[in-house]
Amino acid sequence: MQVNKRKIINDPVYGFINIPSELIFDLIQHPYFQRLRRIKQLGLTHLVYPGALHTRFHHSLGAMHLMQEAIAVLKMKGQKITHEEEEAVLIAILLHDAGHGPFSHALEHAIIKGSSHEDISGLIMQELNRNFNGRLETGIAIFQHKYPKKFLSQLVSSQLDMDRLDYLSRDSFFTGVSEGVIGTQRIIKMLNVSGGNLVVEEKGIYSIEKYIIARRIMYWQVYLHKTVLSAENMLIKILERAKYLTKEGKELFATPALSFFLKNQPGSIEAFNQPEILNHFTNLDDFDILASIKTWTNDPDKVLSSLCKRLIDRNLYRCVIQADAFDYFFIEDLKEKITSILQLKSEELIYFFISDTTSNYAYNIGHDKIFILSKDGKVNEIGAASDHLNISVLSKATTKHFICYPKDI
Amino acid sequence: MQVNKRKIINDPVYGFINIPSELIFDLIQHPYFQRLRRIKQLGLTHLVYPGALHTRFHHSLGAMHLMQEAIAVLKMKGQKITHEEEEAVLIAILLHDAGHGPFSHALEHAIIKGSSHEDISGLIMQELNRNFNGRLETGIAIFQHKYPKKFLSQLVSSQLDMDRLDYLSRDSFFTGVSEGVIGTQRIIKMLNVSGGNLVVEEKGIYSIEKYIIARRIMYWQVYLHKTVLSAENMLIKILERAKYLTKEGKELFATPALSFFLKNQPGSIEAFNQPEILNHFTNLDDFDILASIKTWTNDPDKVLSSLCKRLIDRNLYRCVIQADAFDYFFIEDLKEKITSILQLKSEELIYFFISDTTSNYAYNIGHDKIFILSKDGKVNEIGAASDHLNISVLSKATTKHFICYPKDI
Amino acid sequence: MQVNKRKIINDPVYGFINIPSELIFDLIQHPYFQRLRRIKQLGLTHLVYPGALHTRFHHSLGAMHLMQEAIAVLKMKGQKITHEEEEAVLIAILLHDAGHGPFSHALEHAIIKGSSHEDISGLIMQELNRNFNGRLETGIAIFQHKYPKKFLSQLVSSQLDMDRLDYLSRDSFFTGVSEGVIGTQRIIKMLNVSGGNLVVEEKGIYSIEKYIIARRIMYWQVYLHKTVLSAENMLIKILERAKYLTKEGKELFATPALSFFLKNQPGSIEAFNQPEILNHFTNLDDFDILASIKTWTNDPDKVLSSLCKRLIDRNLYRCVIQADAFDYFFIEDLKEKITSILQLKSEELIYFFISDTTSNYAYNIGHDKIFILSKDGKVNEIGAASDHLNISVLSKATTKHFICYPKDI
Amino acid sequence: MQVNKRKIINDPVYGFINIPSELIFDLIQHPYFQRLRRIKQLGLTHLVYPGALHTRFHHSLGAMHLMQEAIAVLKMKGQKITHEEEEAVLIAILLHDAGHGPFSHALEHAIIKGSSHEDISGLIMQELNRNFNGRLETGIAIFQHKYPKKFLSQLVSSQLDMDRLDYLSRDSFFTGVSEGVIGTQRIIKMLNVSGGNLVVEEKGIYSIEKYIIARRIMYWQVYLHKTVLSAENMLIKILERAKYLTKEGKELFATPALSFFLKNQPGSIEAFNQPEILNHFTNLDDFDILASIKTWTNDPDKVLSSLCKRLIDRNLYRCVIQADAFDYFFIEDLKEKITSILQLKSEELIYFFISDTTSNYAYNIGHDKIFILSKDGKVNEIGAASDHLNISVLSKATTKHFICYPKDI
Repeated sequence: MQVNKRKIINDPVYGFINIPSELIFDLIQHPYFQRLRRIKQLGLTHLVYPGALHTRFHHSLGAMHLMQEAIAVLKMKGQKITHEEEEAVLIAILLHDAGHGPFSHALEHAIIKGSSHEDISGLIMQELNRNFNGRLETGIAIFQHKYPKKFLSQLVSSQLDMDRLDYLSRDSFFTGVSEGVIGTQRIIKMLNVSGGNLVVEEKGIYSIEKYIIARRIMYWQVYLHKTVLSAENMLIKILERAKYLTKEGKELFATPALSFFLKNQPGSIEAFNQPEILNHFTNLDDFDILASIKTWTNDPDKVLSSLCKRLIDRNLYRCVIQADAFDYFFIEDLKEKITSILQLKSEELIYFFISDTTSNYAYNIGHDKIFILSKDGKVNEIGAASDHLNISVLSKATTKHFICYPKDI
Repeated sequence: MQVNKRKIINDPVYGFINIPSELIFDLIQHPYFQRLRRIKQLGLTHLVYPGALHTRFHHSLGAMHLMQEAIAVLKMKGQKITHEEEEAVLIAILLHDAGHGPFSHALEHAIIKGSSHEDISGLIMQELNRNFNGRLETGIAIFQHKYPKKFLSQLVSSQLDMDRLDYLSRDSFFTGVSEGVIGTQRIIKMLNVSGGNLVVEEKGIYSIEKYIIARRIMYWQVYLHKTVLSAENMLIKILERAKYLTKEGKELFATPALSFFLKNQPGSIEAFNQPEILNHFTNLDDFDILASIKTWTNDPDKVLSSLCKRLIDRNLYRCVIQADAFDYFFIEDLKEKITSILQLKSEELIYFFISDTTSNYAYNIGHDKIFILSKDGKVNEIGAASDHLNISVLSKATTKHFICYPKDI
Repeated sequence: MQVNKRKIINDPVYGFINIPSELIFDLIQHPYFQRLRRIKQLGLTHLVYPGALHTRFHHSLGAMHLMQEAIAVLKMKGQKITHEEEEAVLIAILLHDAGHGPFSHALEHAIIKGSSHEDISGLIMQELNRNFNGRLETGIAIFQHKYPKKFLSQLVSSQLDMDRLDYLSRDSFFTGVSEGVIGTQRIIKMLNVSGGNLVVEEKGIYSIEKYIIARRIMYWQVYLHKTVLSAENMLIKILERAKYLTKEGKELFATPALSFFLKNQPGSIEAFNQPEILNHFTNLDDFDILASIKTWTNDPDKVLSSLCKRLIDRNLYRCVIQADAFDYFFIEDLKEKITSILQLKSEELIYFFISDTTSNYAYNIGHDKIFILSKDGKVNEIGAASDHLNISVLSKATTKHFICYPKDI
Repeated sequence: MQVNKRKIINDPVYGFINIPSELIFDLIQHPYFQRLRRIKQLGLTHLVYPGALHTRFHHSLGAMHLMQEAIAVLKMKGQKITHEEEEAVLIAILLHDAGHGPFSHALEHAIIKGSSHEDISGLIMQELNRNFNGRLETGIAIFQHKYPKKFLSQLVSSQLDMDRLDYLSRDSFFTGVSEGVIGTQRIIKMLNVSGGNLVVEEKGIYSIEKYIIARRIMYWQVYLHKTVLSAENMLIKILERAKYLTKEGKELFATPALSFFLKNQPGSIEAFNQPEILNHFTNLDDFDILASIKTWTNDPDKVLSSLCKRLIDRNLYRCVIQADAFDYFFIEDLKEKITSILQLKSEELIYFFISDTTSNYAYNIGHDKIFILSKDGKVNEIGAASDHLNISVLSKATTKHFICYPKDI
């Protein structure tokens, strides 16, 4: 029986992923984790990069795999990590994304207002901890950065955690954007601990530089690609319209889980203390959203059906993105044109004209830093240690302005 | 405007795929083709190989890409292929899978009885031909093996067509099963035409041998993997139960497209002449099925909800597979045990005990053959040309017997 | 100091190779092992596959890397392997090719008659054992199949050893022949020990089948490629002519190590007990041979200079290869033509007309077998366990006849 | 006959390389080009990255392959390029490195003083032009930037030429340093011509940024790796000592080609007008150097034999590299220590203590620039077009100081 749980999973990115313990096998088997099979890692990015259909499930397993490697490296370098701590840090990374909703970031605030997916992951881990008789205590402490050995929490979330290492590699692999390839294996081999903090040995500095650049490139080439921005904003608008119509008393076709959230809008993380909300949330995934949208393409509400038809047929809004804010009169003219051509009521314009900003950080100075350990034992922040990168430039968020509207304008 | 339609698509398998003409761009944009984005190439295989989420959409583009390469090779070798023929053969391969229903092969006969996906692809091409003013005529002739230049049809479907070359490479890539890697590029470079037929030059013989072996290995390691067999048979059982309940007068939650097919069971390809059937079929995809199944996990019918819950939570039936037929008394005992433990009515057993056979051909002698062109111009069938393969062994279908039933027995 | 010896080496095939102990570091640093940097793994194969310049040095490190993985798998499965045994088996595989001479197999019997490279590896290991105060004892016992735990020796040399697994992967990588790609990682994960013998678990059977086929394909596509056959036979002829001229009293330009072997022809492995022979042998590598041949392109002996010029300028003999023996009269006519066109003396013809046979085994039934461990604990030979392979066909050596002669005939 | 010359070559980097014309086949077959098979692309880098044994021959073919792709892209975008121009630009890139001497850059100025390899490539092309009856005229004009269509020359040599694109990809592949992977295919697809100059379309800007960073990283991680610096400086010292001894009247063992250059030291490119010099140069390669060095390990001159023994046995000098100049007194102390421990005469110290600087540019502002073509047709230098890169930082050469000396000090 026990042997059966030591499974090996084929992974095109790393070759094979081992399931290291019976408890972890049982967590993977749990419906809360299996749900992640139905949540795409990159939302609607596959509309631009057709290979990008990989899921939070696969990413979470991948991050756990890298964590196994990182722990092995640190132990080989003399770091004391108990068997219990090892299992706990694997659990923490395995479940770090359990709180993601449908289409990952795309709908993060459209369904549940005011709660980040990390907060929800925390709640789900608490619930699992009850189911598994307290065996997730240490994992939760590590996840919440409350465990004495700081470096364990930093492996789970920091500027250089196993989450980021996996998603850069994996997103690069499935999109086919070779610009995002990073030296994951080398970075992990260069990890160490100094003063209780996770550090990178000096020899790994080039790989870290490359990692920071690769992340920045992936932001603009993939994560914030303008066609993806357009599709995901259209998806948000669809849900806004559906909620609006529901509020107006209209009964829309929807799966039970989605129906619940169209009618109820939990405003804070506390709401999850009601079992009903947690229950519906852990039943909600990409399939509820898309199956409902497909049905709404025939809805009598013209706004809703038009939006849904455009998204399903990939007749996406044109997206213009630029460094500076758009000219006020240009925007006003455009709005008038859209309203008139599509014969919209004025309150309907918000569904057909989207205007917002987006920004990214390749490296965030304010946040947890990446530290470099030099041969003489001194520890420096990457910005000070690197001769080649201008970290002050890279850590400045580049904000861009964008507008989206129907192509037929 | 025209320039916009010469798009380049990122593909992790081949790097980039070019859209070669405006007509092809318009076909790709058509909702009939966009639907293939929502049909997974390998049904439920991702329950075993989590990367295997790629779609018929991606595969069709990939096969079109290989076709472009193959045509370039043949033209370079002096074969006369007009511009119109080239576009037509690209259209034929692009649309060859347009008739696939949800989860590809898994449900091929569960929703529409008696029609193969190729037949339905043909009907959909006819419909598109009407929409595009007859511009698909030649493509359809090639697809239906009615065009004088036989080799063009053979590139679309034969023992060595661009369909098979793409799916072996792509399935191998996304599952991570390196045993399926084939020398696609080399095989294409070795293609030629002799006596009007597609042939492979003698130098490519090793690659063909490897291709035949790789196909056979992919069958047993991926396509007929016992856990996949189990999941897909459970999926079929779910739809059978849903149809049964519908027939009994029960109104099940379902998306409109699925609802239609639960109530109507077109028994032959002719049924597609009713626009309503074609319309519903081209709206049906993986999302309809899975969203409905998720809802049915709470259905009052215990058989249906139990089956659905097991599938959604990946609590799959145990599958035993063996070369010989199972012992009669062993089976009868097992059936009794299942009925008694699960407290089933006798007519419900068929949902909890599955018994069937499965088989594969690595190379099918009866069917269109693979021909090798030797340096002196003679053409031989691969079985005769190869010193190394025992084609008679490889072309014998290996039939295996399998049974599936709940693990808790 | 000790830390310094725990190096990591970049390897494009596996990512990174770890040097696991100080003793192994010192062995790698030894001139006997460093010499392998100057011996190409695949002789003159790079004349056909220009990437195939990798060395015995790199292969030996790679095989050691796989051995580390295999040992880790067996230990995880409960096999008892002491630290001393682990280091010993790593040493055995590391040094298994130390006895290879210039251009690996190409000149195996042209320089030293009657001794295989394995015999010479054994002698070199003995010599190193003396230098390292007996610390190689266990490694030598394993290498010579004299150690009680048979499976350790089988990991070093058998039908499925780390040597073969590495060279197939590595040769495939550097030649770019994707047909040779095997599932190394999966095979290693499926290794186990039963009855003291190395076995493969049943789940790995497809990978083993693929491995046997891949080996066979690599033989015909790479190892016995007719242009490589031609080049390597020309190389042998050059050395034969040089030895002949030396015997006739002619003083040829040659590096000291090569000069020694032109004048002295050790006829058996015992000759290596003379320190002079071992010393010269361990100084001889590809560079001695090629630098001398380059010089001989201007030698006054027309036969020697003509052969050398052809090889250096890659003006290689035409090679014809076929399943049946060549027709006697065809050969006699050809010989006459060559003699007359090139104006040769009759005793010179042997340098310009080569006729021989070559053969390969994909799987050798007579030799150590590959055993499959089924789930019920039974062990079967692969031929009995496989439904798909016709092992009796694959294990039959295919012998081919070939002739080589100048293209200008 | 003609058909025979349309060969396909296996390349692990790009899959296959086509030889596009008979003339190019004949140039590849010429001994001047075949010589490049015996010159490693990266000198002694393989002492650190054991896979880095690839040659100028392979690189030149690879660059020609990329050129074929680039020309196809430009033609598809409407650029007029005649068949003659196409063959000429392929010839120019094919032969651009024909003037490299042994170990590529490592010995660039150690054997022939004052002539760059580009100058010598030019002379060799002239010589080939005479052999091939003037058919290389246009290729030479393009190579020398004297052809009216500037962009053709820029494809051969500029900040973004096919030379750089190939060597970054190839060096990254064979070293296994994934940090150097660039999006070659994407960059080529984004090439265009504007105002007669080669430009990159705006969509390719991220790939260009990544390319600039990857180049910088490859400099520090591979090209200027301190162990490689040490080995290559030792190699230079060996040749200096050999020349010194020769000048002193000592007759060293050497192959004829090397012997010539030990005795004659052509001081300028004009010297190549003497056929003897060109003849010896085109016979000189890595094998002459290494075979001679191996022999010199037993030379009676202690300085020479000690240097050679250290290099052959990979007992390399320790190399210390730092941003600032070394402290004067530290250096003087070190020199004294070396002289005393090794019991050197004062004039021998230069062979055992090396002190120099090294520097790199990732992007050189002064030199030919990389231009970005925006959608509105404007052309900007990459530094102005990129939001993300601080080109002024990247284009500043980073100079580093290094010293090398025996480890036993």
